[in-house]
Amino acid sequence: MNKNSTPWIQTLSLEPPSIKDNTADTDRLLHALKLQLNTDAVHVDLELVRRLPELLRQSAYRIRCILWKSLQQWHLLEVSAAADTRIAAGLAVDLGTTRVVLRLLDLATERILAESAFDNPQDSIGPDILARIHFAEKENGLHQLNELIVDGLNYAIVQLCESQHLDPQQIYVLSVAGNTTMTHLFMGLDPKWIIREPYIPVINSTNTVKARALGVQVNPQARVLIFPNIGSYFGGDLIAGILFSEIYKKSRPCILVDVGTNAEVVLGNENWMIACAGAAGPALEGGVTRMGMTAGPGVIDQIEVDLNTLEFNIHTIDDLPPRGICGSGVIDLAAQLFLAGMIDMRGKLVPTVCGPKIREIDGLYHLIVVPREKSASGGDLTISQADLDSLIRSKAAMYTILETITASVGISAQDLESFYVAGTFGSFIKPASAISIGMLPDLPLDRYKSLGNSSLGGAALALQSDTYHDEIDRIRERITYLELNVNQDFMNRFSAAKFLPHTNTKLFPSVKVFQK
Amino acid sequence: MNKNSTPWIQTLSLEPPSIKDNTADTDRLLHALKLQLNTDAVHVDLELVRRLPELLRQSAYRIRCILWKSLQQWHLLEVSAAADTRIAAGLAVDLGTTRVVLRLLDLATERILAESAFDNPQDSIGPDILARIHFAEKENGLHQLNELIVDGLNYAIVQLCESQHLDPQQIYVLSVAGNTTMTHLFMGLDPKWIIREPYIPVINSTNTVKARALGVQVNPQARVLIFPNIGSYFGGDLIAGILFSEIYKKSRPCILVDVGTNAEVVLGNENWMIACAGAAGPALEGGVTRMGMTAGPGVIDQIEVDLNTLEFNIHTIDDLPPRGICGSGVIDLAAQLFLAGMIDMRGKLVPTVCGPKIREIDGLYHLIVVPREKSASGGDLTISQADLDSLIRSKAAMYTILETITASVGISAQDLESFYVAGTFGSFIKPASAISIGMLPDLPLDRYKSLGNSSLGGAALALQSDTYHDEIDRIRERITYLELNVNQDFMNRFSAAKFLPHTNTKLFPSVKVFQK
Repeated sequence: MNKNSTPWIQTLSLEPPSIKDNTADTDRLLHALKLQLNTDAVHVDLELVRRLPELLRQSAYRIRCILWKSLQQWHLLEVSAAADTRIAAGLAVDLGTTRVVLRLLDLATERILAESAFDNPQDSIGPDILARIHFAEKENGLHQLNELIVDGLNYAIVQLCESQHLDPQQIYVLSVAGNTTMTHLFMGLDPKWIIREPYIPVINSTNTVKARALGVQVNPQARVLIFPNIGSYFGGDLIAGILFSEIYKKSRPCILVDVGTNAEVVLGNENWMIACAGAAGPALEGGVTRMGMTAGPGVIDQIEVDLNTLEFNIHTIDDLPPRGICGSGVIDLAAQLFLAGMIDMRGKLVPTVCGPKIREIDGLYHLIVVPREKSASGGDLTISQADLDSLIRSKAAMYTILETITASVGISAQDLESFYVAGTFGSFIKPASAISIGMLPDLPLDRYKSLGNSSLGGAALALQSDTYHDEIDRIRERITYLELNVNQDFMNRFSAAKFLPHTNTKLFPSVKVFQK
Repeated sequence: MNKNSTPWIQTLSLEPPSIKDNTADTDRLLHALKLQLNTDAVHVDLELVRRLPELLRQSAYRIRCILWKSLQQWHLLEVSAAADTRIAAGLAVDLGTTRVVLRLLDLATERILAESAFDNPQDSIGPDILARIHFAEKENGLHQLNELIVDGLNYAIVQLCESQHLDPQQIYVLSVAGNTTMTHLFMGLDPKWIIREPYIPVINSTNTVKARALGVQVNPQARVLIFPNIGSYFGGDLIAGILFSEIYKKSRPCILVDVGTNAEVVLGNENWMIACAGAAGPALEGGVTRMGMTAGPGVIDQIEVDLNTLEFNIHTIDDLPPRGICGSGVIDLAAQLFLAGMIDMRGKLVPTVCGPKIREIDGLYHLIVVPREKSASGGDLTISQADLDSLIRSKAAMYTILETITASVGISAQDLESFYVAGTFGSFIKPASAISIGMLPDLPLDRYKSLGNSSLGGAALALQSDTYHDEIDRIRERITYLELNVNQDFMNRFSAAKFLPHTNTKLFPSVKVFQK
């Protein structure tokens, strides 16, 4: 097979029937397909069978087939004349709680045709999973939630297809990766028991469902591969991430970190994998800290402090006037403040160093990051001591989780071959800054690798070859989930991590505070 | 497994979930099912998955499953509380061109609950296959034909279920055996190429389709097994008949004859099978000869001629006043007339023997079988010389086909272990009479076995166990179809068979004509 082509599109020349070979149309086609695909069985729906007699005769028995294989089963999804050159598309979907990202691909070549994203319309019901699960318990609540996401997806599909002059009917396969709750809401499954002890999803395993059964308006024959979950708190999005990171293939241990409201961490290699999730704290994601926000135009994503003048050099996304600061910007800022001595080891603002940049409001220190005359809003952009305290707790939680998971298998961070950081957070964070505040371990910077949207990346891989589907199931079966019981050990580690970079500075030999 | 129970109903007690075993509901159920059924995979539809969380918790994890296995794949069709005692029903359907017969069974025990039949409503379009195929070529014609049979079936299902106080939703599996054209019309497949050289059906192989995809209104999860065909002229009804006759299991050769408008003949044993079909002639089926009719109340099915008085002792179905004569009655009559010397070896009425029973109408002899004062209609029931001539041609055709098919494999009729006669014809025919006129070979009478409705019987078997489905495919693959080219050999045999019982009377040693 050509490295640049999938087996999903097959062109066949059938031997026309004769008195000596009166095999039926369907059997003739399936026989040829089985030979060409080297398989025992190809499933074909009655709707396609009904179209065969006319199509075969009109196309002189030269036809193009669109196929899909999943969970050991081949499915015939389309038949047309061999001359048909219309694109057969696949759609990878990262089904996020907050944002849904779509990637449209040419199934034949896996070439990316277009991407788009939209805010999860379920946000109108509740911004987080918990609110939505409670809503789903109301009369018709699950139906409403399901309809919101399915309608939203259908609308986005139409827009995305229009941008490529495609008909949604040309989408034959979808691959969807989401957390356990989002997957349930998308499939119309009651999420009630996900949040109640002993935390039971309705379904764990990989599923291939007809798009029609889900209400997704693409080709009537289209199949949807839905990524499996391991439990209530370890969803298909992370399994897609593991697939994309390829840590399941590595000989030496690697770590994968996906930071959202939760930090989800997977440690492992080709032989074993261990996963955990914990609250990494609100400082890292937008919308929680007073001024923190999701990365977007005009948002500060990088800050440098001139160690001599203590002036801030800021960088905003798209170089627009600054209107706020995102998670990675906050980490940059904290790191620079610490290295410049403007905050101390406890993360407290040092008035003697900060000088006029500090203002006290309602008995709380605030540091002016961008003065009102330079901000987009016309007001000062500040960070408060409370924001910094919150960041310290978050970074300590992150570090403690990493320490705990590595300790659980008796290794240290230094043993990691690669440290993958996924998601928007991973795209913007500067590992050096995260190390400076002791959020991430003090590894050589080249071991840190940003994955981008790994859920979407994993979902897209699943459109390439069914060998990935087998991998998905193997990954799911191989992962041990580590329950982060907040015991005394964890609390001790957490307390030690609440300093910059750490109580034990030997863990961070590369972090040097500037001495004026 | 109990001989009186199928594996289709399984009761399960699942281990309830716990913190230590947080397997999802669906995976928990499927895992238990796979263990209990000793299989790798059980397919379950999203619709059932959606119902699981509430059902499992309400039923304390004790549930009843309705399953079905076909073509190596298990399907979960229903889940309910273990206490559920409602009948799960299966429906076997003999999808005849003229008449459709239904048998409702309890899937758990295979007990027959009820049977019914209705005239194929496609008769309003055309009485025969050919007329219907031509009609299907008109705009919307196929759709109309399909709707007629599906609506007819749905109506019959409602009636049949009502008679048993069942809801059609309680039907989970159907098994349908029909000829190639009827199967196509039922599935909505274009039959156009069945009657055009090189005579290609749309599909040959066994299919399991959702009842919903066919428009059959039973349980939404119900599956329909559709019997395969070998070609345009050898349909699923006959494969069902072979299954029912069990000739595919016999060590010595047997023959199966199903007489309708065509005579369909299968010869074989466990190692080989050969089949052919030929026009057995109109005299054997109702509606063609002037007075011949389908067996029914008041129809003459047996006739004896008193060899001394030449009086007719007739028997009618349900002992009602005679209103006509059916195929088997015609054969009885011809045999008795021949044995009594009232017709000669050529099948010609002998006026000197028949005496006043003969009347000449429009230059043609008629024999009065029932005088008007005894008939239901008030008119004489007669058989004409033309009717008799037609019967002779039919019986000669039948015998020639049998002779040709046995000769093709180098055996004679005497080598047959059993001679199965299927259908209504088989139920009513007296082998002795058929032998007397040389329609069937002169075998010991105990080798003749009437099968009744073997299509329906075979369809019902397919509801019992999927091993029969594998047999169906093996039967289909093993049969050689013998094209009855009407060559000189065939014509010579046919000419020789146009005498009573045969030109070569040595072939019929048991037939003795009465000598007064």
